[in-house]
Amino acid sequence: MKENNQTAPVLIDGKTVSEQIKKEIAAEVAAITADGGKQPHLAAILVGHDGGSETYVAAKVKACDACGFKSSLIRYENDVTEEELLDKVRELNANADIDGFIVQLPLPRHISEQKIIETIDHRKDVDGFHPINAGRMAIGLPCYISATPAGIAELLKRYNIETAGKKCVVLGRSNIVGKPMAMLMMQKTYPGDATVTVCHSRSKDLEKECREADIIIAALGQPNFLKGDMVKKGATVIDVGTTRLPSDKTKSGFKLTGDVLFEEVAPKCSFITPVPGGVGPMTIVSLMKNTLLAAKKTIYK
Amino acid sequence: MKENNQTAPVLIDGKTVSEQIKKEIAAEVAAITADGGKQPHLAAILVGHDGGSETYVAAKVKACDACGFKSSLIRYENDVTEEELLDKVRELNANADIDGFIVQLPLPRHISEQKIIETIDHRKDVDGFHPINAGRMAIGLPCYISATPAGIAELLKRYNIETAGKKCVVLGRSNIVGKPMAMLMMQKTYPGDATVTVCHSRSKDLEKECREADIIIAALGQPNFLKGDMVKKGATVIDVGTTRLPSDKTKSGFKLTGDVLFEEVAPKCSFITPVPGGVGPMTIVSLMKNTLLAAKKTIYK
Repeated sequence: MKENNQTAPVLIDGKTVSEQIKKEIAAEVAAITADGGKQPHLAAILVGHDGGSETYVAAKVKACDACGFKSSLIRYENDVTEEELLDKVRELNANADIDGFIVQLPLPRHISEQKIIETIDHRKDVDGFHPINAGRMAIGLPCYISATPAGIAELLKRYNIETAGKKCVVLGRSNIVGKPMAMLMMQKTYPGDATVTVCHSRSKDLEKECREADIIIAALGQPNFLKGDMVKKGATVIDVGTTRLPSDKTKSGFKLTGDVLFEEVAPKCSFITPVPGGVGPMTIVSLMKNTLLAAKKTIYK
Repeated sequence: MKENNQTAPVLIDGKTVSEQIKKEIAAEVAAITADGGKQPHLAAILVGHDGGSETYVAAKVKACDACGFKSSLIRYENDVTEEELLDKVRELNANADIDGFIVQLPLPRHISEQKIIETIDHRKDVDGFHPINAGRMAIGLPCYISATPAGIAELLKRYNIETAGKKCVVLGRSNIVGKPMAMLMMQKTYPGDATVTVCHSRSKDLEKECREADIIIAALGQPNFLKGDMVKKGATVIDVGTTRLPSDKTKSGFKLTGDVLFEEVAPKCSFITPVPGGVGPMTIVSLMKNTLLAAKKTIYK
């Protein structure tokens, strides 16, 4: 395992790693299609025009191109009914050409996200949000691991960061990041075998837990939450936060801001992810990997 | 919430609580059948003649009687094939009179426990081991919570033990106890909202984590593992261990031994469960509660 004995932290470059993985996937897809196999096909359902969702979905479609996948974008206005959306989900379930699909969250309030997620055929649930995939992941069975935890695990692997026996603090207990991340890090595998602590809004000793952590995975969605004095020297810090804060310095009018106060925390770290360019690109590439697994029917027949 | 300012610890009496709950269930069943409803029916499959398994299944059948349930015990010898067992599982899935059923673990090595578990209809999986129930539990959706974690949660409730913001250390990461227990304790509910740490065989700082814990749930299966100097004053200690150690002082020739060195740990605790008579009886009663939920079709239609 790598150790970083330098004074400067190693910046975990999710952008470069994700480009590398997309090339690996594209090569595999080229081999499959050259062999007469089917081109993987990912569909995405997007409801409304939320800026963040538009950006994410556009990035996913672009990643499909880079990987040699076919992609389909299905759009609805905000007034779509739950039944219309459920019908579309059922149609995609039945469509043999589509290997996997996602419904971009959040959805308008009049639609039950949970109902939509549970209606997706778990064999096409490349986001890994369906209870069957969440359960199989907790148990340690093959499944679609949700994209952000899978992307973080891949970064830890590619940078050879040691996890066995280490104290790993996960900040946040969402169903999409915190809980599955905690489950991953405690499995009997690499990356994993860590002593995992999950902290959240109700935690009394959150700062103390952080100060003792070898690895911190911050997924609270609170910009600049993790300060320099909350991190021990030599820690690995993974920043999942992507809050859009208004900014007059960018063309878009906002600045993507992580949960980690980078300038204070980075000097103390062995390894740290930047925002943007850390976890974000890895999340999208994990979705691509799940789609490839779906096309190859590796997890489910 | 209760505080125990006395010098002696409060002994959490799982036996008495479980008797109370069985009476509550029996009263509900009496009301259901008086109203012309169906008597709940639990079936159990037992393979072989392992002493522990025999005892557990006998206790479950007895608990069914106490609750006013119908019970069916289906026995196989150790040479039963996986296919025979799978056929029986499918038959029980299809049998409308049976509301829920369990397959007593462990099974002989030539049978895949995971395959058996996944073949059980999740709507009848009152042990809560099926991936759908594990996943729904992790997500926080209604489901059959596996019996031991559910029983512990019930004890914490009945003794009004505060959990929100507390540091809860779970020792062990099994699919049946450790992982689901950790998931339960981090949910946004009571009991829950705790800062949860999962320690296991690979953890380096297990003793330190324990010493800082407000609540320790010991489920390692290592007799007398938790010593007095590993527990802070005023802690709540829940002992899930049930190892059968040879003994010449008992008629059966063995002594049920927990993971906690009771005589050292108890004097430091606010609340502690004994072995036997703590978690054990609650596990069985949780199975009864799940069976009642199945009969009433509360979780799944």
